[in-house]
Amino acid sequence: MTVIDVFAHVLPPKFLARMDAIHPDILANFPYMKNQLLTDVAQHRASLPADHQQIISAVNLNPEDFVDPEQAADLCRAANDEIAATVRANRDIFPAGVAMLPMNNVPAALAIIDEQVAGSDVLVGVQLFTQAMGEPITAAAYEPIFAKMAAINAPIWLHPVFDMRKPDNNLTFSWEYELTQAMYGIVAAHYFRKYPGLKVIVHHAGAMVPYFSQRIKYIQPAEDYADFQKFYVDTAILGNPLALDLAADFFGSDHVLFGTDSPFGIPPVGPTAVIEQAVNDMTVTTEQKQAIFSGNWQRLLASLG
Amino acid sequence: MTVIDVFAHVLPPKFLARMDAIHPDILANFPYMKNQLLTDVAQHRASLPADHQQIISAVNLNPEDFVDPEQAADLCRAANDEIAATVRANRDIFPAGVAMLPMNNVPAALAIIDEQVAGSDVLVGVQLFTQAMGEPITAAAYEPIFAKMAAINAPIWLHPVFDMRKPDNNLTFSWEYELTQAMYGIVAAHYFRKYPGLKVIVHHAGAMVPYFSQRIKYIQPAEDYADFQKFYVDTAILGNPLALDLAADFFGSDHVLFGTDSPFGIPPVGPTAVIEQAVNDMTVTTEQKQAIFSGNWQRLLASLG
Repeated sequence: MTVIDVFAHVLPPKFLARMDAIHPDILANFPYMKNQLLTDVAQHRASLPADHQQIISAVNLNPEDFVDPEQAADLCRAANDEIAATVRANRDIFPAGVAMLPMNNVPAALAIIDEQVAGSDVLVGVQLFTQAMGEPITAAAYEPIFAKMAAINAPIWLHPVFDMRKPDNNLTFSWEYELTQAMYGIVAAHYFRKYPGLKVIVHHAGAMVPYFSQRIKYIQPAEDYADFQKFYVDTAILGNPLALDLAADFFGSDHVLFGTDSPFGIPPVGPTAVIEQAVNDMTVTTEQKQAIFSGNWQRLLASLG
Repeated sequence: MTVIDVFAHVLPPKFLARMDAIHPDILANFPYMKNQLLTDVAQHRASLPADHQQIISAVNLNPEDFVDPEQAADLCRAANDEIAATVRANRDIFPAGVAMLPMNNVPAALAIIDEQVAGSDVLVGVQLFTQAMGEPITAAAYEPIFAKMAAINAPIWLHPVFDMRKPDNNLTFSWEYELTQAMYGIVAAHYFRKYPGLKVIVHHAGAMVPYFSQRIKYIQPAEDYADFQKFYVDTAILGNPLALDLAADFFGSDHVLFGTDSPFGIPPVGPTAVIEQAVNDMTVTTEQKQAIFSGNWQRLLASLG
């Protein structure tokens, strides 16, 4: 049976070289980006179990944090072309990729979506982070991106970053809070009601939402609860079948997509084996497990423009 | 079968009157404290289902936020006497209470523990909040309180408050992050290793820890994982039996204590019925459910000084 990992990362090597020329300390500052699986397709391919495929997105090295709006747009376009070329040359393991956007240049981001994503079966969505330029992803400036993605009927991949305004960030928990706050912001801004086609795939199994779903129920309006259930989520919590059962219970097993965050999480190749075992250990039916491993993604893809 | 709710709140009326004289806007600023069940024992008693008992702690109205260290100590001592008198007069429904501490006066806090808690079967522990005086509860200034509580072998009840240094706090999720960060701080400070008798009862079913337990496992040292499992947790997540199963899986069902946060959560009398049903719907054994409802608390109490 084919297993499709919807949240796996690469770092396009030409893009990295350009970023490294702009900011020579990048690999020193972000040592986890030195993982060869990010940049070397042959090693990446060798690390994949048989019958596994990945939807690839870039690691969180975002041009807008380093360069001006024009250059950020140029870097994103080129990186997207590079991801697309990697997909085309390795379609047996990378059925599709996810585009980057220059968040300091929203007009260019919208143009990139039109040019590189809309109608494409190679770059099938975009990745957004929980913050951009120090602002929540639900800041008004970024709303046109959500509107555009709903209009072209393509998903947003939602990935966490630290909020540097907050003290005491730690890798174990703070990203999970940031994902949750971004989901809260998306629901509070009524994006699911304003943009009915909106599809958001949330990393880390929907973060805090399943465990605290009944706080949503009793604290917020009933429509909010229904909106929180509209997110799609991956399985990237490093195991924990009971937690995945809880995610499937809240979002519906049809909104759970196998995803691992490889090659991060468990050195050196990522947590694919651990997460695959956890899905197999869930209490959902065999059919639901198969849907989580690939069918839900295929149905989501088939429903897109 | 008796059900013992280990995390239920009152607001001692004489204490409230004194606080209201100091700061006349308190009830206007904190309207949820107007709930009559907090101050009126007769109404409180009438709201309790048959065979239900509660371990009572004060709502989070903390003198150190309003008055100087001397006055804070005086207010806490008097509030503790008032809680103790309520317990003594209503032992059939309130088998024990939890003391307040003046967090702007650590010497007085330590003296209060010695005088009002150590060896008492009426005030059997203290309540701490995730922050005090704008500092994390694991700030060095408060460490002697953890040391003292371990030394007298009495539990700490850990309750969340917002961290006002952080933007975008919301009632649905931010308290859960604060509980988690306090747990993280307690583990990171190695309090469970420095103070082996330490017992901490965490509100809201251990917050983010069970869902993200495997992030602890793969990101932090193995000893940290074992330390996180040393917390006791209540069941106050407003239902969600699958989430409670997950809590029991991580902390052990012997570390899960029925607790509701009544009379808050679900108006007007609190979520007792919803949470009792959720425990009954857990997949643990009948014996484990009985232990969650009362046996775990009774064993914990029996193990104390």
